[in-house]
Amino acid sequence: MVKVDLNCDLGESFGNYKVGNDEAVLPLITSANVACGFHAGDENVMAQTVKYAKQHNVSVGAHPGFPDLQGFGRRNLDMSPEEVYHMMVYQIGALKAFCDIEGVTLNHVKPHGALYQMGAIDRDIARAIAEAVYAVDPKLYLVGLSNSIQLEEAEKVGLPTASEVFADRRYEKDGQLVSRRKQGALIEDTSEAIQQVIRMVTEGKTTAITGEEIEIKADTICVHGDGAHALEFVKQIREQLTEVGVKIVKLGG
Amino acid sequence: MVKVDLNCDLGESFGNYKVGNDEAVLPLITSANVACGFHAGDENVMAQTVKYAKQHNVSVGAHPGFPDLQGFGRRNLDMSPEEVYHMMVYQIGALKAFCDIEGVTLNHVKPHGALYQMGAIDRDIARAIAEAVYAVDPKLYLVGLSNSIQLEEAEKVGLPTASEVFADRRYEKDGQLVSRRKQGALIEDTSEAIQQVIRMVTEGKTTAITGEEIEIKADTICVHGDGAHALEFVKQIREQLTEVGVKIVKLGG
Amino acid sequence: MVKVDLNCDLGESFGNYKVGNDEAVLPLITSANVACGFHAGDENVMAQTVKYAKQHNVSVGAHPGFPDLQGFGRRNLDMSPEEVYHMMVYQIGALKAFCDIEGVTLNHVKPHGALYQMGAIDRDIARAIAEAVYAVDPKLYLVGLSNSIQLEEAEKVGLPTASEVFADRRYEKDGQLVSRRKQGALIEDTSEAIQQVIRMVTEGKTTAITGEEIEIKADTICVHGDGAHALEFVKQIREQLTEVGVKIVKLGG
Amino acid sequence: MVKVDLNCDLGESFGNYKVGNDEAVLPLITSANVACGFHAGDENVMAQTVKYAKQHNVSVGAHPGFPDLQGFGRRNLDMSPEEVYHMMVYQIGALKAFCDIEGVTLNHVKPHGALYQMGAIDRDIARAIAEAVYAVDPKLYLVGLSNSIQLEEAEKVGLPTASEVFADRRYEKDGQLVSRRKQGALIEDTSEAIQQVIRMVTEGKTTAITGEEIEIKADTICVHGDGAHALEFVKQIREQLTEVGVKIVKLGG
Repeated sequence: MVKVDLNCDLGESFGNYKVGNDEAVLPLITSANVACGFHAGDENVMAQTVKYAKQHNVSVGAHPGFPDLQGFGRRNLDMSPEEVYHMMVYQIGALKAFCDIEGVTLNHVKPHGALYQMGAIDRDIARAIAEAVYAVDPKLYLVGLSNSIQLEEAEKVGLPTASEVFADRRYEKDGQLVSRRKQGALIEDTSEAIQQVIRMVTEGKTTAITGEEIEIKADTICVHGDGAHALEFVKQIREQLTEVGVKIVKLGG
Repeated sequence: MVKVDLNCDLGESFGNYKVGNDEAVLPLITSANVACGFHAGDENVMAQTVKYAKQHNVSVGAHPGFPDLQGFGRRNLDMSPEEVYHMMVYQIGALKAFCDIEGVTLNHVKPHGALYQMGAIDRDIARAIAEAVYAVDPKLYLVGLSNSIQLEEAEKVGLPTASEVFADRRYEKDGQLVSRRKQGALIEDTSEAIQQVIRMVTEGKTTAITGEEIEIKADTICVHGDGAHALEFVKQIREQLTEVGVKIVKLGG
Repeated sequence: MVKVDLNCDLGESFGNYKVGNDEAVLPLITSANVACGFHAGDENVMAQTVKYAKQHNVSVGAHPGFPDLQGFGRRNLDMSPEEVYHMMVYQIGALKAFCDIEGVTLNHVKPHGALYQMGAIDRDIARAIAEAVYAVDPKLYLVGLSNSIQLEEAEKVGLPTASEVFADRRYEKDGQLVSRRKQGALIEDTSEAIQQVIRMVTEGKTTAITGEEIEIKADTICVHGDGAHALEFVKQIREQLTEVGVKIVKLGG
Repeated sequence: MVKVDLNCDLGESFGNYKVGNDEAVLPLITSANVACGFHAGDENVMAQTVKYAKQHNVSVGAHPGFPDLQGFGRRNLDMSPEEVYHMMVYQIGALKAFCDIEGVTLNHVKPHGALYQMGAIDRDIARAIAEAVYAVDPKLYLVGLSNSIQLEEAEKVGLPTASEVFADRRYEKDGQLVSRRKQGALIEDTSEAIQQVIRMVTEGKTTAITGEEIEIKADTICVHGDGAHALEFVKQIREQLTEVGVKIVKLGG
């Protein structure tokens, strides 16, 4: 049976600052990527988010990022691979402690923002990320951009991997995401986006922005919970995937 | 056989800023309290410090503190017990990840600076600290000020505890430390300081600043590694304790 | 003619985190307290907030706080008076640069949160705050809690002061605010709150929670812009003050 | 008469962390670049450093950097030009407040580390830096790498500029610094380094690493105060420049 995971970034509030709609999106997803205090989240938010995920039987993953709260981890920071390795271990370890307390298994790691992007194209950073995850726990799934260097390095290291796709993004013919700066990067039409997802999940293919049919592995779909529109979109993805016989289940489940 | 632990705060450098003399003091101590990135230390320093401790067969403990790098964790911050609990879990978890990678057992936790002082006198904070340590691992020793509320709460929670004493500080007749703001708080004479240590370790007693003989438990002695004088002092403590038959060994060892 | 200022804390967003409703409240107030990057706000938000205030012809003040973004500056931090002095100068100076660029006069300073509370009761902190403001510019109004030590110290230093009152808080018979932990601290009824404000502004008096009539100076009223209810409340305060002939105007205006 | 400025980065300590040798180098230099709290320094250090500079009659400049204390401002951070502009205004404004209090004129601005490097090669960043300095005070000297885009942009904006050279670094034939990653980047021999400085200052020329004679403007020389060797080097530069008739004087002096 074909199956796929739905993942969403959660626990991004910080102190007095509240963002996201965690409680609304939790019933709709199978994996939560929990911010670890560097680019978003703090220890109080982490504790709460792990509890929420447990209540909703949602699988928990670490979502480490650059130490840049102001930039929300979206600005490239020129760290060495060794620095990236240590930063990953620190953040995953911190989140793992909250999971252990709640008797929740930490199931995956998905780098955040600029770190995710750098790992997708820079082999040294990709390897450092993979080695850090493996060092903490070789059973952790590393979630990375489908067709990216990040997943190659994770496999070399011996980690289980999960190829991530985006419902509403278009792809280049080489399997990379079309840059947000380019026209056509986003699929605005909901039906079209959902059809792309279904095809990626069931056939392992999509149509590139330049018209070619390309191969793309889809183990997990990135969704968002901010706002009524986003929630409705997730519901439709769930429904239509279920209708075509896809089982929505956490990674490894 | 009478035994005692020698502990020292290590890994307090941060980024470009180097402090302490970790490599020189490691051969002299049995337990390292490793800063966890909130009041001092960072993930790169933590990784290195755990490696150093392993090389020197020194037991590793977490040294969590307030999120106040500028104040080096020495300024009281009015956090709620719940915030303290989460902050402890986060920091201990982060350090534990580096220990796990190196195959090193995390053996104890000693709160730092203002957090240590608050736990010594504020029962709610003391309990939050103890519960956090217990939640991460009930086998961790909680190192606290001898005769303090912190140790009472740790025992209630079910943790193994270690009563900490200071060689060069004088004590009030109720067993508390003489405030540094008072005259006579520090024992300036090295021989006198060492005699106090030996008596605390071997007899469980010392003479209060007001002349009374008081009971004081000494499971571990806090030492410092900054500067030639401090190192020489640690060497003398070791030698003279050994001469009177005290075994210098890590907590639980 | 009796006059009063309406002040509101603005510019409290940080990076990706948006809070408050600055554009909605600006047309209703006369003074903006702009966060300076330590407890809230950042340099991008500050630049924008000064521009907004200028557009709405609202007077700009600095709103410095403790370096505690996670706690939003609401947790006491045990800084020395000298540290408070430097922290004030730094934050006021940073905001002043954005004002200077926009050709806006920095008109007042109001300490934030825990710093405001500490200055209201701790004379050394109050003096450090006053001296820092005076050092940057002796023409700056220092906004402090009516009847507080903060205002005494500001006057001693030679600063113009503004006594701040709260529409929806009850007062003790000694003129201090009833602690939020006590029952009855808040005036829940809007009419009653507005009547208190009008009486404080026009008569310089209010009725303490214990029934006594007390004197209270009201140069400026603290209002909030978060949510429809808060905005409606500010509108009513404006209208009813105007009806009884009070002129709503910035400090010194 | 030929003249040149000697500048040094100062005030780089942070909280409990002490670096540099500010009091020893101050008598030897004419301009101090004072860290502003983002990559190094804090408000207490800034206050002290401005006082020291005043005592030694050394000209004060702002030394703003990326918000990256852990990386000491040496890691590229992908900020937008607008973010850089605001960050510059904030930091310069904060330092200016301390100068104003001491009656010291803020005389120049020199970006730090990765920000300095980015401004030397990225025109948008260079322009943002220049515009921020101009906005705060159009009389401020902008210190930048000799022959760099940074100085071009500063001149376009209308700022007075100062071309900075390095005594102990070799230059490419296009006037840029030889990358530290290349062999021969550093001039190890003290005499050779001083001869290069003298020639740059008096003739406006040096010999590139590839042997060509190139033009290079030298308004200010970057020196260091860390360690006995560095101090001795500064003394020799001073002496030998003075011997050949060069006047060592602050920018604009």
